Amino acid sequence: KSGEMAKLTQLIENEVFRAYATYATIVLGKMMLMSLVTAYFRITRKAFVNPEDTASFGKGESAKKYLRTDPDVERARRGHLNDLENIVPFLGIGLLYALSSPDLYTALLHFRIFAGARITHTFAYLIPLPQPSRGLSWAVGYAVTISMAYKVLKTALYL
Amino acid sequence: KSGEMAKLTQLIENEVFRAYATYATIVLGKMMLMSLVTAYFRITRKAFVNPEDTASFGKGESAKKYLRTDPDVERARRGHLNDLENIVPFLGIGLLYALSSPDLYTALLHFRIFAGARITHTFAYLIPLPQPSRGLSWAVGYAVTISMAYKVLKTALYL
Amino acid sequence: KSGEMAKLTQLIENEVFRAYATYATIVLGKMMLMSLVTAYFRITRKAFVNPEDTASFGKGESAKKYLRTDPDVERARRGHLNDLENIVPFLGIGLLYALSSPDLYTALLHFRIFAGARITHTFAYLIPLPQPSRGLSWAVGYAVTISMAYKVLKTALYL
Repeated sequence: KSGEMAKLTQLIENEVFRAYATYATIVLGKMMLMSLVTAYFRITRKAFVNPEDTASFGKGESAKKYLRTDPDVERARRGHLNDLENIVPFLGIGLLYALSSPDLYTALLHFRIFAGARITHTFAYLIPLPQPSRGLSWAVGYAVTISMAYKVLKTALYL
Repeated sequence: KSGEMAKLTQLIENEVFRAYATYATIVLGKMMLMSLVTAYFRITRKAFVNPEDTASFGKGESAKKYLRTDPDVERARRGHLNDLENIVPFLGIGLLYALSSPDLYTALLHFRIFAGARITHTFAYLIPLPQPSRGLSWAVGYAVTISMAYKVLKTALYL
Repeated sequence: KSGEMAKLTQLIENEVFRAYATYATIVLGKMMLMSLVTAYFRITRKAFVNPEDTASFGKGESAKKYLRTDPDVERARRGHLNDLENIVPFLGIGLLYALSSPDLYTALLHFRIFAGARITHTFAYLIPLPQPSRGLSWAVGYAVTISMAYKVLKTALYL
């Protein structure tokens, strides 16, 4: 039993795997923040989508008027969905990449650039910054993921 | 070769990892059910979004009237998207947490509360239950994920 | 240290795990392509959602008219979301399945059918093919995931 545990611990003690664990947690935490940003805009802009969420504003027409869309809410939601679309591939491909024995320095470079790109993307989306800020930060994260996918397939390809 | 297999088997024989595997499969299965719920509402409410899906109702205007949104369909879709937003972080952070040698009892507590919170969230969304049922069940799952993320970063932090 | 690395390498040298790594990377890569398809339709159909994305078309009303929805853009977006809803369960359950010591041939069968079904689903959605092409390809991928979930729970169940 303690031998087993030791083996599990070995994985988390590997430096590349620890780096993956750290940056995966950071980008997932960042993505989770988007829920709070959306909730903040829904409450401050009074823009809800579920009737039961407006019950505290009274009944009937007085509450119904808060069932509406708001540009800031929709913007936060689009940022959240873009995170899902890009962070899910990073999670899966990044894990396999971390297990494909990459060079520690190269791996850190990939993880850091990806995390930096996604954080920049969020600011570019929410502020919003003029294009091509958002487009470029999206493309950088995308390119990092492709680069890791290439290493995974080069190491593991088994069709 | 059989040594290799043994090593893989060791991971799945670890109790914390087995608990993770079990609860991850349960919440993913629950999330997959949302597809069936949405399909059920689309068919019973006759509310579709793709023209090719209404072809069996005839041609032209007689089929076109089924290309519409329906409150129950939209509600199921929102529940599904909320699952994605919350279960993806649980999958990634929970896996790293399971590899960070947590206490078995503590790990089970995290996994069970998360699964319970997400199942409650689905009922709260679909019935729907009056607030703050949905908000609270969402927050409980969110807090469990944050707690696991803290343990991962404490164990593995490598920037 | 080199012993550690060896252990990590062992995982990626296991044939079932390599097959998982290959097919997970393929379906994630396919999902990532949906971003490019959406971007292609947004640009060729001139249908944007963020005001800052239309700034290059001029100011005021002349740019505002490009803030609109387009059927092809929306279709690509629905295909992308459907990928997320189905590939996320495959990623999580497939990883656990690969670690549950399945027979190599059986595992390859699951992974290949899933990848084939999702690629078919994308063509069925984008062309679009008449139903039940899209529905069937969705159901095949869904059934493969359920089959892997069953094996995971049979091997690892720990409530």
